[in-house]
Amino acid sequence: MAGDPRGMAYTVGYLGPSGTHSEEVARRLYPGGFRLLPFPRIDAVIRAVESGEIAEGIVPIENSLEGSVNITLDTLAHEVSLFITGEAIWPVKHHLLVKPGTREIRTVISHVQALAQCRRYLAEHFPAAEQQAAESTALAAQMVASGMGGWAAIGSAAAAQVYGLEIAAASIQDNGHNSTRFITVGRRPAPYRPGEPAEWKTSLAFQINGERPGTLCGVLSEFASRNVNLTRIESRPARTGLGIYIFFIDVQGSLEEGPVREAFEAVRAKSLWFKELGSYPVLLKG
Amino acid sequence: MAGDPRGMAYTVGYLGPSGTHSEEVARRLYPGGFRLLPFPRIDAVIRAVESGEIAEGIVPIENSLEGSVNITLDTLAHEVSLFITGEAIWPVKHHLLVKPGTREIRTVISHVQALAQCRRYLAEHFPAAEQQAAESTALAAQMVASGMGGWAAIGSAAAAQVYGLEIAAASIQDNGHNSTRFITVGRRPAPYRPGEPAEWKTSLAFQINGERPGTLCGVLSEFASRNVNLTRIESRPARTGLGIYIFFIDVQGSLEEGPVREAFEAVRAKSLWFKELGSYPVLLKG
Repeated sequence: MAGDPRGMAYTVGYLGPSGTHSEEVARRLYPGGFRLLPFPRIDAVIRAVESGEIAEGIVPIENSLEGSVNITLDTLAHEVSLFITGEAIWPVKHHLLVKPGTREIRTVISHVQALAQCRRYLAEHFPAAEQQAAESTALAAQMVASGMGGWAAIGSAAAAQVYGLEIAAASIQDNGHNSTRFITVGRRPAPYRPGEPAEWKTSLAFQINGERPGTLCGVLSEFASRNVNLTRIESRPARTGLGIYIFFIDVQGSLEEGPVREAFEAVRAKSLWFKELGSYPVLLKG
Repeated sequence: MAGDPRGMAYTVGYLGPSGTHSEEVARRLYPGGFRLLPFPRIDAVIRAVESGEIAEGIVPIENSLEGSVNITLDTLAHEVSLFITGEAIWPVKHHLLVKPGTREIRTVISHVQALAQCRRYLAEHFPAAEQQAAESTALAAQMVASGMGGWAAIGSAAAAQVYGLEIAAASIQDNGHNSTRFITVGRRPAPYRPGEPAEWKTSLAFQINGERPGTLCGVLSEFASRNVNLTRIESRPARTGLGIYIFFIDVQGSLEEGPVREAFEAVRAKSLWFKELGSYPVLLKG
């Protein structure tokens, strides 16, 4: 096991089944030489990294329409001691998938969210088609692949490849702003290489004494006074009672840079509880 | 239609079916003389207030374990023009419900979250019982009421009453910190009566230019400098792209009080988009 472990047989977990958007991102981030392993749930991916069963995991953390993926935030904050090692923005593209040779589409099947996100396209092109709900876009593709004629699935390009389907129409989603932010997680922080790639981010979670007015502002001012740019702030329940929260903050830059490191130390000193989630490169910008 | 409309036949919507925790809270907040109407989804309750089909609606907005109820926040921000008219904290109490005369429990059915929240109790008292998942705690109670012997449901006291079940064991949840914050929504702000009840809150939603460091801190300082206490801050996607958020803030006090009103006007001046969600009394503190 010498040299860069990424150059060796290396297992990366993702949210399955095969053919999901998560798998598409995993394939892009971990090309040839990596073994990709699907897990049934997001927390199972993260726990498998913690236990050492897999080297890294890739999980969604935020969607531009649906917001935070709570199970990802809660598991990282409460259940494991891991680091975010990379970030990838993935534009969610829905395609109309059919068995090769399909002429007429009478039924369209997909996850309800995907059906909803293609509502206008379906109303215009297939107003008479019946719509069926499936548990995931990948499962819908699998059902079309194994089923009768006249069916189409809405799903990812990876699903088309995995289940031998044809893309009858590409990028049929109504809303151009649908993208998902994925993170990779590992047991060690990402090795810092300044400017390669150009953009780094750093994440933390903390709990403050929320009773006093201005406490959160006092924390945020540690970043503002050092010109460290916040890209995101999110609150989640601390699980110890209503009205008690932990905050997740993402900032631009790496802990290897003075202002970010100083701001983090100042916030740590003001917090009841503090967890560094690591500095990591932006691997894909969508 | 003269006098206090609350004194008249008055329809209040809640998240059904009959027997949910939402109905328990609705019964407490709206005793005799009010007609309670169940709706299948949270957004349907809120939209029915907007359309005038019902006078007020009661919906969950936050749980101490699960966090924000996103559909409530998103619908209030994007889909309707309504006001929050009251708040109620409700301790979620799970009971073991059986048909009168049941001697032996071989199967326990409930919503998966309720089963999970009673895990320790079930392991200790019914280690051999099979666990079945239902779509809601109310539906589980309904199934036990109409089913064979040897079954128990985990559900609310309201469900026991609605479906004629007996509480075999009360308050069996593992975690003492499980409570839900409900709000009532109406077409007009709650009439202000200072000190009656003692506690008032005010909510707003806004979007700021997040590109500049310190912008959020600048907004929060408008509250801090006036000693207005923030009780909650939550971010949700603005739905126009990743990294663009709207914030929800709750503060102590009413817009009828100078410092709260001044802070709101200052925040409005700094915002790209701003929506007042009203001042309202804390009706139940749990």
